[in-house]
Amino acid sequence: MPGIEFFEALKRESDSRMLLLVADGIGGLPRERGGLTELETAKTPNLDKLAAEGTCGLLDPVSPGITPGSGPAHLSLFGYDPMKHNVGRGLLAALGVGFPIQPGDVAARINFCTVDDQGLVADRRAGRIATDVNQKLVEKLRDAVKIEGVGIFIETVKEHRAVVIFQGPELYDSLNDTDPQVTGEKPHDVIAADKQSEKMAGIATDFIGQAGATLADDHPANMVLLRGFARYEKFPTMEEVFGIKCGAIASYPMYKGVAKLVGMDVIDCGPEPEDEVEALKQNVGKYDFFFLHYKKTDSRGEDGDFDAKVKEIEHFDSLIPAIRELDFDVIAVTGDHSTPSVLKQHSWHPSPLILWAPYERRDECDAFGETQCALHGGLGRHRSTDLMPLMLANALRLEKFGA
Amino acid sequence: MPGIEFFEALKRESDSRMLLLVADGIGGLPRERGGLTELETAKTPNLDKLAAEGTCGLLDPVSPGITPGSGPAHLSLFGYDPMKHNVGRGLLAALGVGFPIQPGDVAARINFCTVDDQGLVADRRAGRIATDVNQKLVEKLRDAVKIEGVGIFIETVKEHRAVVIFQGPELYDSLNDTDPQVTGEKPHDVIAADKQSEKMAGIATDFIGQAGATLADDHPANMVLLRGFARYEKFPTMEEVFGIKCGAIASYPMYKGVAKLVGMDVIDCGPEPEDEVEALKQNVGKYDFFFLHYKKTDSRGEDGDFDAKVKEIEHFDSLIPAIRELDFDVIAVTGDHSTPSVLKQHSWHPSPLILWAPYERRDECDAFGETQCALHGGLGRHRSTDLMPLMLANALRLEKFGA
Repeated sequence: MPGIEFFEALKRESDSRMLLLVADGIGGLPRERGGLTELETAKTPNLDKLAAEGTCGLLDPVSPGITPGSGPAHLSLFGYDPMKHNVGRGLLAALGVGFPIQPGDVAARINFCTVDDQGLVADRRAGRIATDVNQKLVEKLRDAVKIEGVGIFIETVKEHRAVVIFQGPELYDSLNDTDPQVTGEKPHDVIAADKQSEKMAGIATDFIGQAGATLADDHPANMVLLRGFARYEKFPTMEEVFGIKCGAIASYPMYKGVAKLVGMDVIDCGPEPEDEVEALKQNVGKYDFFFLHYKKTDSRGEDGDFDAKVKEIEHFDSLIPAIRELDFDVIAVTGDHSTPSVLKQHSWHPSPLILWAPYERRDECDAFGETQCALHGGLGRHRSTDLMPLMLANALRLEKFGA
Repeated sequence: MPGIEFFEALKRESDSRMLLLVADGIGGLPRERGGLTELETAKTPNLDKLAAEGTCGLLDPVSPGITPGSGPAHLSLFGYDPMKHNVGRGLLAALGVGFPIQPGDVAARINFCTVDDQGLVADRRAGRIATDVNQKLVEKLRDAVKIEGVGIFIETVKEHRAVVIFQGPELYDSLNDTDPQVTGEKPHDVIAADKQSEKMAGIATDFIGQAGATLADDHPANMVLLRGFARYEKFPTMEEVFGIKCGAIASYPMYKGVAKLVGMDVIDCGPEPEDEVEALKQNVGKYDFFFLHYKKTDSRGEDGDFDAKVKEIEHFDSLIPAIRELDFDVIAVTGDHSTPSVLKQHSWHPSPLILWAPYERRDECDAFGETQCALHGGLGRHRSTDLMPLMLANALRLEKFGA
């Protein structure tokens, strides 16, 4: 499988325009063995028409059996092998809260926790404190913790979780988690696994010391555990590798963040799906490629609410006619991963795919559903990383490889 | 995916005989979305029978979305990962004209071009001079250009294009193109990107100087640009890795050349498809494996002539009964890549495949067509590099891997 850099030599100019529509977690499972999935249950006349006109298949975000997080799942759709272009958890947390992280910054996840008189961890999640308590503790830490020559930014995530971003020269991330994973033990010291990470180990140790002192009287959240240290290494941008100007339309910070990682412009828009379509309409002439993210199919799957996910899929379907009026040359509709409501979480199942494009062969898939795509789709089953090459090829934006 | 060397330890003797029939560019596209391709339109009773008896699938020459040149596309069919075993453009040009290139030779493509009084490139293609003009210029260069200790061979390709092969000790190819890609600039100097290529850089610079002096009065073709320097590195041969003696039957120099690269014997034959089949018949007992190349399916696709490509496919089909009389144990029929007449060029679409072999499972594909192979074929979709292992396995020529 060629890496993303392979395409740099093949990029070719064209006026064609592409749209990647991601209905987050749209793939699912039946309520009972042998039944219909959420997507197959939903009435989706517009997606079915697109499927009948286009060519269908399945996409595995990473590889069969692997359940991806949203970061790797989206990177894969954007053409970046998520095994090579890894996004550390700290970095994802920073992106998730919309922090404008810069290359060279190191981010880590914070868990507020409870330690006893001897400094042993008594509760790794500080009784799952409420988010508003978290916000007050974060404000306290922001005021109190200072380290010479290092920018420190702390942001609430949710309940006992927060994120810290360190900015400064020569910061590296080969550091262990301090979370001992069990109660009754001390938090681990931060130890650098290589020479260049020693500076950051010292800063993290200092940070933890100051945070512990600041929170000493804030039982149950009287200490912090740091996890998932991750330096933001600049990715080759989609413009660099594919030669396309990319616009991202998403209402959640996480997806805006992943789009920014690969160099997309994030286009402002309101919170509703209709606002996203309007933003697409307003900007349609300005970019070669759009990524439009529809969130709630995933949210209802994570809620475990089959019927509500069906409704969200139908809502997504209702947006298609207005999108088709914008006359894209290539439209792909898929999910980043599956989120079956029976599992209430992301899953490893491949995402159904419609590739509506000018130069594809006919197939026998005339409805958008997981089983239809698997059995009657002409594209077959691919890694998500193969989608961008297929879209670019149909947009006539790839040169021939070799003579 | 195992590299070619992996098979060296698995090769196993057998008397079984294999035939790889490549109908160049046989895969195509419908004239209009949802219609039939050239292959699906053609009446191919013999291929349909072979498909019904055999097992079908699809082959991607490189990976989804990537359009390959003929070199990488054939190497992939022969089992060589074209990303690892790259064939430089100069080398392909030398193979294309049938030059007997040897390991260690360096080849480069020549463009005859026009330079003005100040040496700035005025036309990168010298007004696309006629091929017979090219031939006269090549003769002039052959007489005039001499470099001590270096064999220099110049061959006409077509119009403004030619190829030069340098023979001598210690020649390497990490050299830039001299083509500035735009007019109004001087040709680039030849600069070695590594120490070992410095000798060749000096030779190329000398060559360009002598060529410019020789052609000074031959406006518009009064200078040469050199592109795609490529050293011929010896490939492991198919006999070395698979343990099979291979014969190639092809009427075009390019395909003979690629076959030679992997150590096949090139069998003399006349220019017509029937001559190729006759050559196969005459040599059938002498080799374990034959590669037979049918060219015109690609040519008519590149012409953009859907109906003519249909006719060529039908001609190809008519050869099948005589071929089947030769009692091969394993026959594979496929393309090196697709050449849809609507695109008038190679494309990224997978090639349809019939594997007619003794140890395959039944499938539901009873006609040879792209959509039939995709939806009703039992083999599924693979990289072209997987074909050789599948043929060898069916020929019982591969040992078990591991205990």
